[in-house]
Amino acid sequence: MEYQIILIGCGTVGQGFLEILDRKAELLRDVYKFEPKVIAITDMLKGSLLAPDGIQLKKLLEVLKAGKKLNDYPGPKEKTEDYLDPIDLIEQVEADILAEVTYTDIKTGEPATSYIKKALRTGKHVVTSNKGPAALHYHELKELAHLNQRHFRIEGTVMSGTPVFHLFETGLAGNEIREVKGILNGTTNFILSQMELEEMEYDEALKLAQELGYAEADPTADVEGFDAVAKVVILANAIMRGKIKPDEVNRQGISTLRKQQIIEAREAGLRYKLIARVKKVNNHIEASVTPEKLPLTDPLAGVMGAQNALTFDTDLLGKVTIQGAGAGRLETGFSILSDMLAISKSGKN
Amino acid sequence: MEYQIILIGCGTVGQGFLEILDRKAELLRDVYKFEPKVIAITDMLKGSLLAPDGIQLKKLLEVLKAGKKLNDYPGPKEKTEDYLDPIDLIEQVEADILAEVTYTDIKTGEPATSYIKKALRTGKHVVTSNKGPAALHYHELKELAHLNQRHFRIEGTVMSGTPVFHLFETGLAGNEIREVKGILNGTTNFILSQMELEEMEYDEALKLAQELGYAEADPTADVEGFDAVAKVVILANAIMRGKIKPDEVNRQGISTLRKQQIIEAREAGLRYKLIARVKKVNNHIEASVTPEKLPLTDPLAGVMGAQNALTFDTDLLGKVTIQGAGAGRLETGFSILSDMLAISKSGKN
Repeated sequence: MEYQIILIGCGTVGQGFLEILDRKAELLRDVYKFEPKVIAITDMLKGSLLAPDGIQLKKLLEVLKAGKKLNDYPGPKEKTEDYLDPIDLIEQVEADILAEVTYTDIKTGEPATSYIKKALRTGKHVVTSNKGPAALHYHELKELAHLNQRHFRIEGTVMSGTPVFHLFETGLAGNEIREVKGILNGTTNFILSQMELEEMEYDEALKLAQELGYAEADPTADVEGFDAVAKVVILANAIMRGKIKPDEVNRQGISTLRKQQIIEAREAGLRYKLIARVKKVNNHIEASVTPEKLPLTDPLAGVMGAQNALTFDTDLLGKVTIQGAGAGRLETGFSILSDMLAISKSGKN
Repeated sequence: MEYQIILIGCGTVGQGFLEILDRKAELLRDVYKFEPKVIAITDMLKGSLLAPDGIQLKKLLEVLKAGKKLNDYPGPKEKTEDYLDPIDLIEQVEADILAEVTYTDIKTGEPATSYIKKALRTGKHVVTSNKGPAALHYHELKELAHLNQRHFRIEGTVMSGTPVFHLFETGLAGNEIREVKGILNGTTNFILSQMELEEMEYDEALKLAQELGYAEADPTADVEGFDAVAKVVILANAIMRGKIKPDEVNRQGISTLRKQQIIEAREAGLRYKLIARVKKVNNHIEASVTPEKLPLTDPLAGVMGAQNALTFDTDLLGKVTIQGAGAGRLETGFSILSDMLAISKSGKN
């Protein structure tokens, strides 16, 4: 079945998604009966492109890889512009699915939340990898989707395309989830791994992470736990049915940890990890992001480097842990496709 | 929606399944719109029970817990018998789903394969945790299911209810699977863990496993790798689209491993695991079950005790590992429910 797609944001994730659609077109059509047709893209830096008959992805990817803009797309099109406001675009263009992959603003969730609302209200399914709307407005957006009989899907917001929400919805269906706990930030996990395995001090490990592109010039969002807080709030609300806000999460980062503490823990058979945790306590939901010393028998203790992992503690299956990438161009791009396949499978066009 | 269910086999797994249906009835109805009605059960040792209006599970579970037979069920019923042949039962009773949880015969796959064929031919979906039919006749049974527009689902055959097939079908959909490798036998993993952590010799660790109920009196199927072979064949055929038979698997067990080898590996930063592996080599599928020395950075190296785990190597997401229980009454019972929920969700009654 054909799905008309609007893409808001054409940076790393958006381009990763387009590349996957291009590479997998045949498989998606033949095996999954999913025929995506990207008809509009807008991006603050790269301009805008409308092509109601479908953008030829190979051509567009060549243009983007050459560092050019959407406006330079040479195929058949209705129009290009320096920048079409996503709100106008979503309102004016009929489509089946909005893929929202703009930047995360964890304070306001904007402007992405407005885009998502506009899309749901105009009858479009929404797929996003943006943590802002999911962390701040999950229940409101889910309710709006429900009212409009549309999907609102967020696989890419936690552990990029590693399928934590798919796992929860399908393989674990029927279980009560008593707790989720995980390593949700690759940067801090890389730093802690270096401090333990290479006996580096924190500053030295951070510098290496920055050199390798794992950490940003201002590493605050990662090392002080804010990124993991956004993700743990999403898990609390989407999986544990909580109604919590980021500032209700007990948060502690890793920047005050010293090599000495990590080595002492190791000598005691323990390993420091920045653990994001959500659990039910007396019928309400508590969430935290704090460094914890795990015994080496904990499945999360073995998760080294920039990997992520999440353990579901369930009533019927006991503990189930999924480990995989927590970031990446193709990995996060895949999360968008993955949610679209779930929409397609549900039979809603 | 109501689903009429026939259960063949009422041992540990069958009873675990019934207990879950009983405990979760309200949730299944309200959240998943799944209303199971068990209308017939037959078991070689426990007799047979037919109740077209639905067996009252609480009453039946009390009878079974008291060590009595299906024939002793006190609720409304059509008949009980010492033993109704499953083939006759499946042919004569109209139902939506057959749950097949009899014993595994890995040489012939019988009599379970005949039950499954009869069920598919008489218009019933089939859910099984039995490794025999899935390892020996996967493609034939899948094709028969397809012809009859029924499901043939096997979540419980590998890692009990830990959802490896659900993960493959949903969250990983769209990926090419380049390799799967895993720890699929809890008994051998427990023995290897004991040999390394407690520095036990093989015989001593095996004896402990037997005392704790992890290993059988005749441990051959586990320690020589036959159990893992059955599972790796299922993965090869169901996930990697191979067409291989158990005797084509390169198999080596753990009974000849010595403590000394394991300690030497540990000193080199490596850990012995019995690894089940399926990969594509020059366009055909190769499978093996052999002890391997893994670096500690491998997600499978951290899997200790009776746990199981499986790593999917994919083209878009890289490596995704799922870890969880590999056996257990509720865990395997849950696999049966889990497959039924997938059938229910697909909208086929």
